[in-house]
Amino acid sequence: MAYFDAASAAPLHPVAHQALSASLDEGWADPGKLYREGRRARILLDAAREAAAEAVGCRPGELTFTSSGTRAVQTGVAGMLTGRRRIGRHLIVSSVEHSSVLRSAESFEADGGTVTRLPVLRSGAVESGAYAEALRPDTALACLQSANHEVGTEQPVAAVAEACRAAGVPLLVDAAQSLAWGRVDGGWSALTASARKWGGPSGVGLLVVRKGVRFAVREAEEFGNLPAVVAAVASLRAVRAEAAAEAVRLRELTERIRLRVPQLVPDVEVVGDPLRRLPGIVTFSCLYVDGEALLHELDREGFSVSSGSSCTSDTLTPSHVLRAMGVLSEGNVRVSLPFGAAEADVERFLDVLPGVVAGVREKLGAPVAAPAAEVRADSLVVDALGRRCPIPVIELAKVIGDVPVGGTVRVLSDDEAARLDIPAWCEMRGQEYVGEEPADHGVAYVVRRVS
Amino acid sequence: MAYFDAASAAPLHPVAHQALSASLDEGWADPGKLYREGRRARILLDAAREAAAEAVGCRPGELTFTSSGTRAVQTGVAGMLTGRRRIGRHLIVSSVEHSSVLRSAESFEADGGTVTRLPVLRSGAVESGAYAEALRPDTALACLQSANHEVGTEQPVAAVAEACRAAGVPLLVDAAQSLAWGRVDGGWSALTASARKWGGPSGVGLLVVRKGVRFAVREAEEFGNLPAVVAAVASLRAVRAEAAAEAVRLRELTERIRLRVPQLVPDVEVVGDPLRRLPGIVTFSCLYVDGEALLHELDREGFSVSSGSSCTSDTLTPSHVLRAMGVLSEGNVRVSLPFGAAEADVERFLDVLPGVVAGVREKLGAPVAAPAAEVRADSLVVDALGRRCPIPVIELAKVIGDVPVGGTVRVLSDDEAARLDIPAWCEMRGQEYVGEEPADHGVAYVVRRVS
Repeated sequence: MAYFDAASAAPLHPVAHQALSASLDEGWADPGKLYREGRRARILLDAAREAAAEAVGCRPGELTFTSSGTRAVQTGVAGMLTGRRRIGRHLIVSSVEHSSVLRSAESFEADGGTVTRLPVLRSGAVESGAYAEALRPDTALACLQSANHEVGTEQPVAAVAEACRAAGVPLLVDAAQSLAWGRVDGGWSALTASARKWGGPSGVGLLVVRKGVRFAVREAEEFGNLPAVVAAVASLRAVRAEAAAEAVRLRELTERIRLRVPQLVPDVEVVGDPLRRLPGIVTFSCLYVDGEALLHELDREGFSVSSGSSCTSDTLTPSHVLRAMGVLSEGNVRVSLPFGAAEADVERFLDVLPGVVAGVREKLGAPVAAPAAEVRADSLVVDALGRRCPIPVIELAKVIGDVPVGGTVRVLSDDEAARLDIPAWCEMRGQEYVGEEPADHGVAYVVRRVS
Repeated sequence: MAYFDAASAAPLHPVAHQALSASLDEGWADPGKLYREGRRARILLDAAREAAAEAVGCRPGELTFTSSGTRAVQTGVAGMLTGRRRIGRHLIVSSVEHSSVLRSAESFEADGGTVTRLPVLRSGAVESGAYAEALRPDTALACLQSANHEVGTEQPVAAVAEACRAAGVPLLVDAAQSLAWGRVDGGWSALTASARKWGGPSGVGLLVVRKGVRFAVREAEEFGNLPAVVAAVASLRAVRAEAAAEAVRLRELTERIRLRVPQLVPDVEVVGDPLRRLPGIVTFSCLYVDGEALLHELDREGFSVSSGSSCTSDTLTPSHVLRAMGVLSEGNVRVSLPFGAAEADVERFLDVLPGVVAGVREKLGAPVAAPAAEVRADSLVVDALGRRCPIPVIELAKVIGDVPVGGTVRVLSDDEAARLDIPAWCEMRGQEYVGEEPADHGVAYVVRRVS
C-alpha cells in the first residue's frame, strides 16, 4: 500500500492527531467570550496564530485562519480586488494556477472585471519578464502560485514580486504546495495556503495579508474549529522541522522516477521543470494509454496517484495545466510523495509500472477496429470521430508509416484531448504538426511525416 | 464551575470526541478520488450525510456540509436570492434573526435589494399574520429562525411556512438553536444549522435546500474536514437520543430560574415567551446593573453566561433582539444550559445571584455624584450626559419621587441603551413614558410620574 497523492491531501501527521485530541477539551468555546472557557480558547488561538505567523514569516495580526485553502484564495482575491476597485478592474493570473484562483478570476470577469491569463513555458513556469509586461496602471491584483500542483514546477515568485512592487501592484501568492518546505521569499503582499497539503486536517486554510495592503473584508468571522487550527499549526511546525532533510531524500526519489520511467517504459514524456521543482512531485504521460485505466490498475497494485488526463476528469477535458504547457495529456500520472514515503515503495512502483502500462496498451490496441483509412495521393484520412483519448493518437501512430515522407495524415476527431495530444505526439516523434482544419464533424488535425 | 452558555457553543459531546478520533485515520483523503483512501473517505462522508439527513428530515442529496452555521446562512441566502433574481429583489427577515442572517440582508441591500425587517411582539415572536402580509409578488426569499438565540422564544415556523407556500415564496429557516431538540416542522424550503450548538465541533454547519427550490451555487466545493463532519453528525444523533428526556429536565430547571429570580432579586424583568420557548434558555435583565460587571462577578463565582447589555458589546449598543422586543437591556443575563447541566449548579446559581446583583448595584450606587437636578415648576431635568448604562436609569429612579404625580422628569443622555431602557423602566414601574425630545447634547427622554 503506497499513497503517492500528497499533492491532493497528505495523510494526517501524527503530531496533528495528537494536537487535535489534546485541544478538543480546551478549544470548543467561543474565543470572543470573556469567561474562563472563552479565555482558554483565546489563549490557544493566539498561540496557534503566532506559531503559524512564524512559519510563514509574517506578523500574527496579518494572518487569518479560514475553512480551507480554497476559501483563503476566494477571500483573499475578492478582498484585494474590492479594496483596490478604485485603482482599476484588471487582474493577472498565470494560466497554470490552482482552480480556486482561476474560478475567482472567472467570478471577477462575470462581475465586469478584465483578466489576463499569462501563458507558461513548456516547463510550466511563467517568464517573469512577460509577467512584468502584463502589469498595467489599472491592474488591481496579480496572482502567482509558488509552485505548480500538477507538475511541481517552481515559479519565479521573487522576480515577479519585485516587478509588482515596482509597478505598485499587490501580488497574491498561492503557496499551497510549497509552504510545508519553507517560507516564500520575496516581497509578496498576500499569501494563501492549505493545511491538508502538509498533513494538517482538511478544512483549514491560511490567509495572510500584509499590513498596509488595501483589503476589503466582507466577513468578520474567523474560521471557528479551533482544535483543527491547533492541529494544522502543530503539523506545519513538525513538517518544517523535517523539511530540509526530507527535501533531499524525496528529491532523490523523484529524480529516480524522472530518470528511470523513460528507460523502463517506451513512449513516455516526463513533464515539468527538471531542476526548479518541488522535491516530492514528478509527473509523466504515457502515449497510447487511457489515464483512468492506468490509475485503476495502479490502485489494484496498491498505488494511489492522480492524473490530469481527460478521461479522469468530470468534464472529459485534459488538465488546464498540461494544456497550458502544451505537453502530452494522455496516460498522465502525477506521483506526489508524502513526507516519509518509503524508498522501497518507490522501487516497487518502478518495478510494477512497465507491466501495468504494457497491459493497458495491449487492451487498448487489441479491440481497435481497422481505421477507415482511404488513400488519397500521398495523404491519409483517419476517422476517429466518437473515439476518446488515447484512441485518436493510437490511430495516427498506426498509419503514419503508410504515407511517404512529406505526406500528411488528417485525423478527424471530436475529442478535446486530441487538440493537445496530437501536437504533443508530433513533438515527441519528430513529426511536423501542420495545424487543425475545420471538418464536417469535429476537427481535422493535420500531421506531416518528416522522418 | 458551571458553563451556562450553551447557546453560544455547547461543550464537545463525548461521542463527538470519540467519533473525531476514530475517523482521523480514515477521513483525511479526498473523497472525490477513486483510489482506496478516497473511497474510504467517500463512504464515511456518505454515511454522515445520510445520518444528518435522517435527523433533519430531508433527502441526503438536499444536504451539504459547510464550514460553519454562518457560512450555511450566507450560502443559503445568497444562493436562493440569486436563484430567484428574476422573480424579484425583495427579502423578508424578522428583526430578531441571528446576526448572520441580518448581515446577509445588509449585503443584499448594499447590492440593490429591498429588505423588510418584521417587528416582533414583546415576547420576541413574530406574528404569522403580519408575516403573511409582508409577502409580495417580488419577494425572492423569506427567512425565519426556528427559535431565538437570545431569549429562547419559538417562532411560528409552520404557520409562516404555510403562508409562504401559498404565496409561492421559499422560506429559509435558521434552525441553529433548535435542531438538537428535534426536526423543524412545516413546509420550509431551506434550513441551516450549526454543529457547535449541539456539542459537535466548531466550524461545521449544515445547509439543506429542498429539491425543486431554485438555487444558484457559486462554489461547488463542500467543506472538507471530514472527521469534524463525522463528529458533528455523531453528536447530533447522540443528543437527539437524549433530547426528549433532557427537554423535560432542562425546562424544569429554566422554569425554576424564571420563577425564582424575580422573587430573589428586586427589579428584575424576565424576558421571552414563558411557554413557547426552548427548554434550556432563560433570559432576564436587572435594573440598575452594569451587565459587564455582572458577568465578571458571575465568572468569579464560577458561572459562564452571556449578556445582551450594551456594555458587553463591542459597539456599546444593546442587543438588537432585546431592542426589537422593547424590553430592558441593562443588567441582561442569558442562562443557556447545556445538555446534562447539573441541578446543583442551577441551585447554586440561584443562591449566588442575589448577592452578586446587590454587590454590583452597591458599587454603582455609591460613587454616583449628586445629579445636576434643577427644579422647574413640576418638572426636573437630570443631566446624565457622558454616563453609560445603567447610570441614566439609576438617576431617573433616584429623582422620580421628587416631582409630584403628573410632573415630569427629563433625562438628558447620549447613551444608546437609554433609548431602550428608560421606556422599559417606565413599563416595569408603572410610570408613563412620554417620548424623546431633541436636546442641545444627546436626547431628552421625558417620563411622567403617574403613581
